[in-house]
Amino acid sequence: MQVSVLRNVLDTNDLIARENRREFDAHGCFVVNLMSAPGSGKTTILERTLRALKGRLRSAVIEGDVQGTLDADRLAPLGVPVVQINTDPHFGGACHLDARMIRNALPALALGGVDVVFIENVGNLVCPAEFRVGEDRKVMVLSVTEGEDKPLKYPLMFRVSELLLLNKTDLLKHLDFDLARFRANVTRVNPTLPVIELSARTGRGIDVWVDWLLREVAAPAAGRA
Amino acid sequence: MQVSVLRNVLDTNDLIARENRREFDAHGCFVVNLMSAPGSGKTTILERTLRALKGRLRSAVIEGDVQGTLDADRLAPLGVPVVQINTDPHFGGACHLDARMIRNALPALALGGVDVVFIENVGNLVCPAEFRVGEDRKVMVLSVTEGEDKPLKYPLMFRVSELLLLNKTDLLKHLDFDLARFRANVTRVNPTLPVIELSARTGRGIDVWVDWLLREVAAPAAGRA
Repeated sequence: MQVSVLRNVLDTNDLIARENRREFDAHGCFVVNLMSAPGSGKTTILERTLRALKGRLRSAVIEGDVQGTLDADRLAPLGVPVVQINTDPHFGGACHLDARMIRNALPALALGGVDVVFIENVGNLVCPAEFRVGEDRKVMVLSVTEGEDKPLKYPLMFRVSELLLLNKTDLLKHLDFDLARFRANVTRVNPTLPVIELSARTGRGIDVWVDWLLREVAAPAAGRA
Repeated sequence: MQVSVLRNVLDTNDLIARENRREFDAHGCFVVNLMSAPGSGKTTILERTLRALKGRLRSAVIEGDVQGTLDADRLAPLGVPVVQINTDPHFGGACHLDARMIRNALPALALGGVDVVFIENVGNLVCPAEFRVGEDRKVMVLSVTEGEDKPLKYPLMFRVSELLLLNKTDLLKHLDFDLARFRANVTRVNPTLPVIELSARTGRGIDVWVDWLLREVAAPAAGRA
């Protein structure tokens, strides 16, 4: 019974996610749902990405946090529209964004002039994987400081993602992180998940990720998930 | 209406948590609920802790993971009873342990010979803070790689915790982590939260944490939360 209630929650969420998607499509917006554990570097990656896209694509950001506007404040100097969602009215703070929260945020974004919308989800490797928000692509970030066992412990996130950004590779030389074992663990859970190694701190690999993004945005909508 | 349903879930959880607590108390077990984001180093801290406690306190561990027995397998060589809870029958994997899961795990633990039970929660900085499980103390771990803004973004976890273990301090020299700013952020959210700096990798600070634990376990139960 509990399971069927939860099934219902997800079905309702999917309906609203599809409405969001129609709204994004109507404005020609490509939407990336960016997910990770807390502190994996999503916001620093976004800062680099928004700078790299300047003059090539018009971006907008929806920031999801339990409380506060810290990440939105960090992005403000980049001159890109940012809308902040705080999940804290929900039960001490919802641990994920859902489709309704995105729908409620949409009136605050002028989608007409936007090519790509980045949705920075709440830092969490579990529930964000379960809630579609109307995105074209789910992209996850994992920092090498989190350990190579994470695909086996949080498999759903690795299964639903369409790209994995492996961040903080500048720290690899100071860690015991086993890159080969990590890649083997990813393959066990999702054999087709592409992995881009990068360092948001040094900028290494950001060009590879931006190239991926430009290709995906340029692809015909019919090819999208 | 949604809020009152959730209020109900929490009330029911608290009832079961109190039953768990009575059961732990009846056996003279001190219980630590260990919480953090994924990859903060809870299991490595536990490995060090269980070794340090050998011959001083009899320990047991309840491991909480969405899937798998990786952490339980890591602890097995330490000769301490370990029970694994997998949360994956719940909705693609519950993102936290609740009191009922702990209650269901208790028959598998012979509490009679145990002084201290460590409950390693699912890696998540949001929902585990909301669910009591019958613990005496909530202890959170944060790795310095996660950034100094986390108290402001996940305030409930910092508010409910009674000790913060700041892990991976061996990496500080390679990071931009501002320790003074982090401590100021902690103080803003929870002015009385003690912080122990440690490195589970090098062992630095483990003695301070173990001393804290021995003091808490020795304190009269009446003094417990």
